[in-house]
Amino acid sequence: MSKTVSACILVIGNEILSGRTKDSNIHFLSCELTKLGIQVQEARVIPDDKEVIIDTLNKVRKTYDYVFTTGGIGPTHDDITTACVCEAMGYELIRNPQAVEMLKTNYANPEDLNEARLKMAETPKGAILVENPISKAPGYQIENVFVLAGVPRIAQAMFEQLKDRLTGGAVVHSQTISTNLVEGILAHPLGDLQQKHATIEIGSYPYFKDGQLGVSLVLRATDTGNLELCAQDVKEMVASLGGNITLSS
Amino acid sequence: MSKTVSACILVIGNEILSGRTKDSNIHFLSCELTKLGIQVQEARVIPDDKEVIIDTLNKVRKTYDYVFTTGGIGPTHDDITTACVCEAMGYELIRNPQAVEMLKTNYANPEDLNEARLKMAETPKGAILVENPISKAPGYQIENVFVLAGVPRIAQAMFEQLKDRLTGGAVVHSQTISTNLVEGILAHPLGDLQQKHATIEIGSYPYFKDGQLGVSLVLRATDTGNLELCAQDVKEMVASLGGNITLSS
Repeated sequence: MSKTVSACILVIGNEILSGRTKDSNIHFLSCELTKLGIQVQEARVIPDDKEVIIDTLNKVRKTYDYVFTTGGIGPTHDDITTACVCEAMGYELIRNPQAVEMLKTNYANPEDLNEARLKMAETPKGAILVENPISKAPGYQIENVFVLAGVPRIAQAMFEQLKDRLTGGAVVHSQTISTNLVEGILAHPLGDLQQKHATIEIGSYPYFKDGQLGVSLVLRATDTGNLELCAQDVKEMVASLGGNITLSS
Repeated sequence: MSKTVSACILVIGNEILSGRTKDSNIHFLSCELTKLGIQVQEARVIPDDKEVIIDTLNKVRKTYDYVFTTGGIGPTHDDITTACVCEAMGYELIRNPQAVEMLKTNYANPEDLNEARLKMAETPKGAILVENPISKAPGYQIENVFVLAGVPRIAQAMFEQLKDRLTGGAVVHSQTISTNLVEGILAHPLGDLQQKHATIEIGSYPYFKDGQLGVSLVLRATDTGNLELCAQDVKEMVASLGGNITLSS
């Protein structure tokens, strides 16, 4: 049985906590990491505050196999992620020559690569860069911490560049059985099935769709054989209660 | 000067961390709390895991003025939030008579209010209920912790019911100045303006829109007079660099 590989997502940015910007990096990274057999066990949104970033990073990087940060690596005064990563993890902050070369490819006129933009070439000494095919300013990896941009399109492109470096554990497969029955009807027999299938994580998620209440029962497990057995039981249970069934993976 | 009132949002649910469901409660609550003068200083997504919920809740409820949880208060086996709140905070878990009355209004046939549904009437002893105008099963407040449903429409309706109980501090006002200039051009003069206007939080957020790069400069402060002075300086700075300006609040 392969071991569990865990991850934490740290979204760094006052704009998320003030409600100005709706984060979408947590959802993107959760989906992608799950596919790779990496279980996101926590996601935190924290402010652009040096002490908070350092303290949080030092907690989570020791708790989880991987940490992914988004935000705070641009050229402006409020971009403090790299300085905090260096201080938290005890690395010298350098102007990374390879990152400077990447940035140069973005500016036809060398003079446009001013001091502010060169800040985007700063990394902890020893960091392994993560290419940014969109705006060139790279992210990077230092130990088990991946530092990505906050702009979703760039964070997503960076993730494509780095994902071959990740070692996942057992992939969690899922089956979703949706029905027009409501939770109050399903709860007891579903609880019994959860006891019977102890290795399957059974989640029950009510929804409103087209003015209609319903429930999605989501079965998750690393073993597809056990998952299938459990799904059969759940479908029989829903049918016996007179519910209709829609399937998805 | 009014004091800062802080809050933490705890989103409880495996379905968010697996990527199955995209959370929208963090964004909704952040927006609403900001309007009330309550600063969301942290948001965490955690799994349906008893130990993690208890441990996290006990940390954050002592750190922040308010805590808002979403998720895990339905009738099924995976709904463990209330049991965890009771254990974390040392309250007896009771079947709340007032909550039972609320639930009764949802079922024409009294027999439909089965044991599973009655689980939704469980609260810590002494909790103050938060009405749920949609599906009747209430949320509740215990000390500084507000326990809300995970389904966004219900969480939002519950927030409407509880918001008069909250005492905000100074409201943070904001002005957004968007421009077609990019961060690499703005960074240095903007950093100088941040030094000049130390009481204003100046954030710089690059965006792609209609294939065009641009930056939103967001100024935030409790004092509208200082905010206006800073906004004037930022607009002059952008104009002097030849950028166009779009304003929003």
